Amino acid sequence: MRDQITAGKLLGAMRADPPLVQCITNFVAMNIAANVMLAAGASPAMVHAEEEAGEFAAISGALTINIGTLSSGWLAGMLKAAQSANAAGKPWVLDPVAHHATAFRRNAVARLIELRPTIVRGNASEIIALAGGASRGQGVDSRDAVEQAEDSARQLAERHGCVVAVTGVTDFVTDGRQARRVAGGSPLMPQVTALGCSLTCLVGAFAATAPDAALDATVAALAVFAVAGEQAAKAANGPGSFSWRFLDALAGLDKEVLDREARISAA
Amino acid sequence: MRDQITAGKLLGAMRADPPLVQCITNFVAMNIAANVMLAAGASPAMVHAEEEAGEFAAISGALTINIGTLSSGWLAGMLKAAQSANAAGKPWVLDPVAHHATAFRRNAVARLIELRPTIVRGNASEIIALAGGASRGQGVDSRDAVEQAEDSARQLAERHGCVVAVTGVTDFVTDGRQARRVAGGSPLMPQVTALGCSLTCLVGAFAATAPDAALDATVAALAVFAVAGEQAAKAANGPGSFSWRFLDALAGLDKEVLDREARISAA
Amino acid sequence: MRDQITAGKLLGAMRADPPLVQCITNFVAMNIAANVMLAAGASPAMVHAEEEAGEFAAISGALTINIGTLSSGWLAGMLKAAQSANAAGKPWVLDPVAHHATAFRRNAVARLIELRPTIVRGNASEIIALAGGASRGQGVDSRDAVEQAEDSARQLAERHGCVVAVTGVTDFVTDGRQARRVAGGSPLMPQVTALGCSLTCLVGAFAATAPDAALDATVAALAVFAVAGEQAAKAANGPGSFSWRFLDALAGLDKEVLDREARISAA
Repeated sequence: MRDQITAGKLLGAMRADPPLVQCITNFVAMNIAANVMLAAGASPAMVHAEEEAGEFAAISGALTINIGTLSSGWLAGMLKAAQSANAAGKPWVLDPVAHHATAFRRNAVARLIELRPTIVRGNASEIIALAGGASRGQGVDSRDAVEQAEDSARQLAERHGCVVAVTGVTDFVTDGRQARRVAGGSPLMPQVTALGCSLTCLVGAFAATAPDAALDATVAALAVFAVAGEQAAKAANGPGSFSWRFLDALAGLDKEVLDREARISAA
Repeated sequence: MRDQITAGKLLGAMRADPPLVQCITNFVAMNIAANVMLAAGASPAMVHAEEEAGEFAAISGALTINIGTLSSGWLAGMLKAAQSANAAGKPWVLDPVAHHATAFRRNAVARLIELRPTIVRGNASEIIALAGGASRGQGVDSRDAVEQAEDSARQLAERHGCVVAVTGVTDFVTDGRQARRVAGGSPLMPQVTALGCSLTCLVGAFAATAPDAALDATVAALAVFAVAGEQAAKAANGPGSFSWRFLDALAGLDKEVLDREARISAA
Repeated sequence: MRDQITAGKLLGAMRADPPLVQCITNFVAMNIAANVMLAAGASPAMVHAEEEAGEFAAISGALTINIGTLSSGWLAGMLKAAQSANAAGKPWVLDPVAHHATAFRRNAVARLIELRPTIVRGNASEIIALAGGASRGQGVDSRDAVEQAEDSARQLAERHGCVVAVTGVTDFVTDGRQARRVAGGSPLMPQVTALGCSLTCLVGAFAATAPDAALDATVAALAVFAVAGEQAAKAANGPGSFSWRFLDALAGLDKEVLDREARISAA
C-alpha cells in the first residue's frame, strides 16, 4: 500500500530540493510572484523572451504561463517555452487571465491549450468561458462562483487531459476522474493584486516536485495558500498589512501544521 | 438645486459599482497601482498591447495612460486605446511622466494630447513644460512648486478643453474656469515610488464613476489620497511602513470621514 | 594627506545632491529597486527604450544595466545607453543576471562587457562563469560561495579594467589591485526577490556621487545594504516584514551610524 501524498509531504520535498521554475507571468505579478515562490521555498526565474524561453524551459523543473499583460512578442516566447517543456517532459501550468475579454486573448489561449498544459488554473469566469460557457467575468475579475464552474472544469479536464483548478472562496480541483475541494484563505486575498497569478507559479513549483502527481501537486499548492492566507489574515487590518504577513506565513509554514490545518475534501 | 457632488459621495458610488479601468502604466507602477485601485474599490486591468488595447478600451469605464517606461510598441497601444476611448465616449487620463526629458517623450505626448484627454495629471515640472514653460524637472522628479505651475495648468486646460491636476504638497486642479486646491498627504508619499502614477489610475476610476463631472472626479481622487496619506503617515516610521499602511487606509476609508477630513478649497 | 573616503561621507554627499541614475533593470526589480533608491536618497529613472536610452544616459549621473528579464529590444537600448554613458564620461554598472543560463544571455553579456562597465556586480556563480570558470549556478541563484569567486573577480577586474563586486554572505570587492570585504546583512535578504538587483542600482548612485572613486563607491553601497539589512532583520519575522523594514532602515540610516557599524576590511 502506497503512502498518502499529503500537502505537507510535498512541501517538505519541495524545500529539500528547491525546484527551478520558469515563470512567464504578467508585469503586475512579477515581483509578488517571485516573493511568494522564494518564501514558500522554490527557485523562480522570470524568463520570457522568444530568444531563450525554449532553451530555459528545458533546464527548468516546470514552466508556468500567465497571459495577464499579453503581447505578440511574449506570446511567441510562451509558445516556444511550452513546446520545449513538452519535448523535455516537464510539467507546465496555464493561467488564462481574462482570456474571454478580447479576440487576441481568446486566440492566444486557443493556441496555448493545444500544447497540452499539465494544469490549468483560473477563476470561475475564466474556466466557464474556456469550456465554452457564458461567463460573467469583467476584466480580470470573476463574477461567477466556483460552484458554477465545476462542470466546466470537469469538461476541460476530460477534453484536454489535464488537471483544472478553479480558485475562489473554496477551490475546486479535478483531473476529470477525481475531484477535491480546498477551503480556507481570506476575503482579503482578492484585494491584493496578483495573488492568483502567484498561486499559478506555486502550482508549477509543486508540479516540478511531483511531476507524476499533478492533482496532488495542485491541491498542495492551493492548501499552502489557504492555510497561510488564514494565518496572515488573523493579524491583518487590510490588504496592505495582509500582503507582507502572507509572505511571512508562507516562509514560516510548518509542513505538519499544513497537514493539520488544510481543509481538503473529496468532491 | 442640485446636491453637491462630494468626494465621499463619489467614493460610495464607485464602491457600489466598481468601475473597470484600463490602466496603461509603467513597469514600476504596475503592482502598486493595481493594489491602490483594489484597495480603494475599483477594478483595474493592465492591458497595453496594440493587438487588444483598443478593443479593451471600448468595454472599460475609463482609460489611463502613463508614459513612465515608454517604448514604441507601447505608444502604439496607447494611441489605439485613446482613440477607442474617444469613439466610445469614455473618459481618459494622461500622465505625461518626465515628458520633458527626451525628444521621444516630447513627441509621444504631443501625439497623445492631440487625442484630447479628459484629464491630465502631472507634477509641477511636467505641467509647466507641457504648457511650453521652462521647467526645472530632473528625470521623473519635480523641482518646481505646485504654485509655479498654476498658470500653466490654466493655459493647458483652456487650450485642450481638459481638466488639469498638478499634484504636490498642495494639489491644484482646474478646468480652465473653476479651480480647487486639495491639501493633505504626507512628505513620505514622494519617497514611495509610483504613488503619483497610482493616483492617475484612481483619477480614472472616479472619472468612470462620474464621467460628466471630470473636475469633481479628479478632486475626489486627490482627496482620497490626501486623507488616506495623512492617516497612514501617523503610525509610519519611513517609506516602507507607510506604503502598506496607505493601502490599509485606502481600504478602510469611510466616505463620511473622507468628507470631514478632506481639505478642499476654491482657488 | 587626503581625507579617507568613508561610506558615511559618501552617503551624506549623495543625499546632499541626489544623483539622477538611469536604471535599466528587470521587471521583477523595477518597483523595489526604485523604492530602495528613493529610501537611500537617490533619484532613479527607469528608462530603457532604444529610442531614448542613449539620450537619457547623457543627462544622468550614472547608468545601471541588469539583464534579468532580457529581450532583444531591451538589449538594443542597453547597448545604446552604455555607449552614451561612455561618450559622456559617466560611470555605468553591469549586473549579469544568470548570464550562464542561455546562449542569448552569454552573447548579450559578451557584447555589454566590451563596452567597459565601470563596475560589475554579481553573485558568486555569475562572477565565476563570467571569468570563464565552471559555476554551479541554477537559474538566478548562486550555488557557489563568495570565497570561491575571489580569483575570478580579480581576473575580471584586471582583464576589463573595472571594479568587480561579488555579493553574498560576506561581499568581496576588487579593482584588481586592492580588495575589500564587507560583512553584515541578513539571511532574510536572499529570500526577498531582487534585492541584489536593487543593490546594483544603488552602486550606480554612489558611482554618480564619486565617479573617480569606483571602489570606494561600490564598498559604500554594499555597506549601506549590510548595515540597513542587519537593522531591519532585528524586528523581522520573515521576508515580508523584512522587506518594508529594510526600506525604513535605508531611509533612516545615519551616516555616522553607517561608519560605526559597517564591517569593511582589507582583503
